[in-house]
Amino acid sequence: MSADTADALLGAVDPSSLRPDQQRVLADLTELAGLVESAEPGFSRRVFSDAYRAGREWVRDRMRAAGLEAHIDPAGNVVGVLRGANSALKPLMTGSHTDTVHAGGRYDGIVGVLGGIEVARRLREEGITLARDLYVVDFLGEEANSFGVSCIGSRSIAGLLLPEHLERTNGDSALRLGDAMTGFGLDTGGALGQAWAPGSLHAYLELHIEQGPQLERSGKQIGVVTAIAGIERLMAAFSGRADHAGTMPMQGRQDALIAAAEAILTIEREACGAPIHGVSTTGRIESSPGSFNIVPDEARIWAEMRSVDASWLHGAKRRVAEDIAAGAALRGVETAIEWLNDQDPVAADPDVQRLLGDAADALGYTWEAVPSGAGHDAAHLAHLGPMGMIFVPSVGGRSHVPEEFTEADDITVGIHVLATALVAADRSERPLVAS
Amino acid sequence: MSADTADALLGAVDPSSLRPDQQRVLADLTELAGLVESAEPGFSRRVFSDAYRAGREWVRDRMRAAGLEAHIDPAGNVVGVLRGANSALKPLMTGSHTDTVHAGGRYDGIVGVLGGIEVARRLREEGITLARDLYVVDFLGEEANSFGVSCIGSRSIAGLLLPEHLERTNGDSALRLGDAMTGFGLDTGGALGQAWAPGSLHAYLELHIEQGPQLERSGKQIGVVTAIAGIERLMAAFSGRADHAGTMPMQGRQDALIAAAEAILTIEREACGAPIHGVSTTGRIESSPGSFNIVPDEARIWAEMRSVDASWLHGAKRRVAEDIAAGAALRGVETAIEWLNDQDPVAADPDVQRLLGDAADALGYTWEAVPSGAGHDAAHLAHLGPMGMIFVPSVGGRSHVPEEFTEADDITVGIHVLATALVAADRSERPLVAS
Repeated sequence: MSADTADALLGAVDPSSLRPDQQRVLADLTELAGLVESAEPGFSRRVFSDAYRAGREWVRDRMRAAGLEAHIDPAGNVVGVLRGANSALKPLMTGSHTDTVHAGGRYDGIVGVLGGIEVARRLREEGITLARDLYVVDFLGEEANSFGVSCIGSRSIAGLLLPEHLERTNGDSALRLGDAMTGFGLDTGGALGQAWAPGSLHAYLELHIEQGPQLERSGKQIGVVTAIAGIERLMAAFSGRADHAGTMPMQGRQDALIAAAEAILTIEREACGAPIHGVSTTGRIESSPGSFNIVPDEARIWAEMRSVDASWLHGAKRRVAEDIAAGAALRGVETAIEWLNDQDPVAADPDVQRLLGDAADALGYTWEAVPSGAGHDAAHLAHLGPMGMIFVPSVGGRSHVPEEFTEADDITVGIHVLATALVAADRSERPLVAS
Repeated sequence: MSADTADALLGAVDPSSLRPDQQRVLADLTELAGLVESAEPGFSRRVFSDAYRAGREWVRDRMRAAGLEAHIDPAGNVVGVLRGANSALKPLMTGSHTDTVHAGGRYDGIVGVLGGIEVARRLREEGITLARDLYVVDFLGEEANSFGVSCIGSRSIAGLLLPEHLERTNGDSALRLGDAMTGFGLDTGGALGQAWAPGSLHAYLELHIEQGPQLERSGKQIGVVTAIAGIERLMAAFSGRADHAGTMPMQGRQDALIAAAEAILTIEREACGAPIHGVSTTGRIESSPGSFNIVPDEARIWAEMRSVDASWLHGAKRRVAEDIAAGAALRGVETAIEWLNDQDPVAADPDVQRLLGDAADALGYTWEAVPSGAGHDAAHLAHLGPMGMIFVPSVGGRSHVPEEFTEADDITVGIHVLATALVAADRSERPLVAS
């Protein structure tokens, strides 16, 4: 397909005819934004919440209304299928997620799910039958959660959900992820056993908000993702000694909180020095006993580093662990670092990147290649076939906050490119090959 | 009195006869250590807890058994009086406190209260009647608490408990200190109105564990306190901006937790550079929202600085505020620093220091002059008359932890010096003059 343009592949289809119905998409966004945890701030529809359950049923019903065969699979994914002319061909898949972080926004993930549904609606309205089946999937639990297992649903389909994931516990209540899934009405045995075969997808395309400031800064309408950042997540525990804060001289202390503060700065400094791309964040800290007049003897931090540059990320992991331990040791503070998650960077398929850029060009939209700092379900689906992602701008680069916003016109442009690229991919005679 | 020695003042009293009954004191310590909050770790007998109420009744009964006239005053102080020959003379006072920090120890404050009771018992047993009344007081709520008002009882007697103190609220439940006192059966009006007149005490002497490592390191049995450190306590709030931790570049962030981490190190560095004496501690931190993948937008730290050097302490207060605000501003993070407490250093009376050293010498105990990094009720009682403190060694310098320990022989030595100094002060014909 590298020699083909999206234009050539589209054949008789006029790409401008695939333009989505902006008002309908906005109405869907508004309706789903009403299904949130009422006692929580912002837009909170966290995995396993009642609001999430209501949202999944709403998505399933919306898929059915759009003419998709829709069901909820054993892992809780809402799976809609628009049948093509020849179900023997490898299918296409698009999708994203509708869970949010606590006090999150209305667009992260949601635009990709509702966009996929809108593409199916527009295809039916235009009387276009794809050759291949098109799966539109709302994957379960993409966001980081208290179990430390993100992308639960897409891991399941990609064969990357493991029994050990189900044993991980929620820090607050020691609830197993597997028990949380069962309590949500899911089938953990089925979730572990439903993986699709590698190579079984013709292509996976995902539309998503950028969640960062790059597109807004460059003024481009579309970002064609080059790679999804790898993530290293850690919990560092510091054990010092509690002493009276008024009587223990500074040089006699083993202050766990100060060691943790230094670690926070060490983690930041590492990403500031990344040569290509890297971010790092300490998102949470705890210390005890928490009195003015007692030197803290225990502290814990939870942090992550991300990069599309695997070699930097692996080096950063080693250096951060060494530097944190060495800094704490100078203070007589013991450290224990637990690595909770190590997802390697995932490159988008080069042919799919070219297809997406061609589709944007054919529609007259501006675009540029961008890295994805955020993790996505697409990183897991890349195990099943050629993967690509379409980004649309986030105002102010804000995400995971209630103020998260993407202009309606930008969402429309993103869905338009998704529709065009799916039609072009459907008509590609040569299979797309995973890079 | 500067020309007198304790020896000369003791007259007919053989100081060796005032030696306390070590087994009896240890039995008292053990019994009171059993009256703790059963659901809490270590030795927890926090102000306003049921265990504290039980402990106060136990102390009152112990005083009565020792022959003291004992009552609980409107501020909750347990006040015992050993009548002297001439109640028209200015009285002597000794005492300390029996409340603990959360998960604290068995000696902090307690040694001074039980030591005072033992002195009264020994005086009666030896048939020694003081010229002056001797007050033995267990002051209410000396430790830092969630209302931000330490030394509640000694402030009341010294006239330093103010209506504004009673309006301060517990951070967790927004309970007013005044309401907590009323709920504990106290009389807040009486607590505000019972102050003794400045100059009304002949002397105030307090026995206390050192809570630091200096005496253990020097091998001295007794520390004669030169001054009680002043304390500056602050809460610094940092407001940044929440962003997606994977997508917001490092240089575009306004990370409140990183600003807080830098502030922790700024606060530490300031005390490490104190020329005479200074300590600083960040005892508590909070940040939100607390997810791996969200840049923290809010953080708060609670910290304190202490020194017996008032000029350093005042300068440190200014420098720390400036440095924290400047560091945070470089990161686009706003700061609000609230000063919660500003107690100036309080010097011990030079004549009383000399009397205490003379008493130790007369008994053949080794001693040295030491600063007090910890705050004490004595700092407030110094408003009423000449004040002095006797320290005994803390093993490993540990305090405010369950492992807090002072050797029985050291406690005995401390009570012996207290008894001897009280008898000597009682017989001083010239009033001790507050410095």
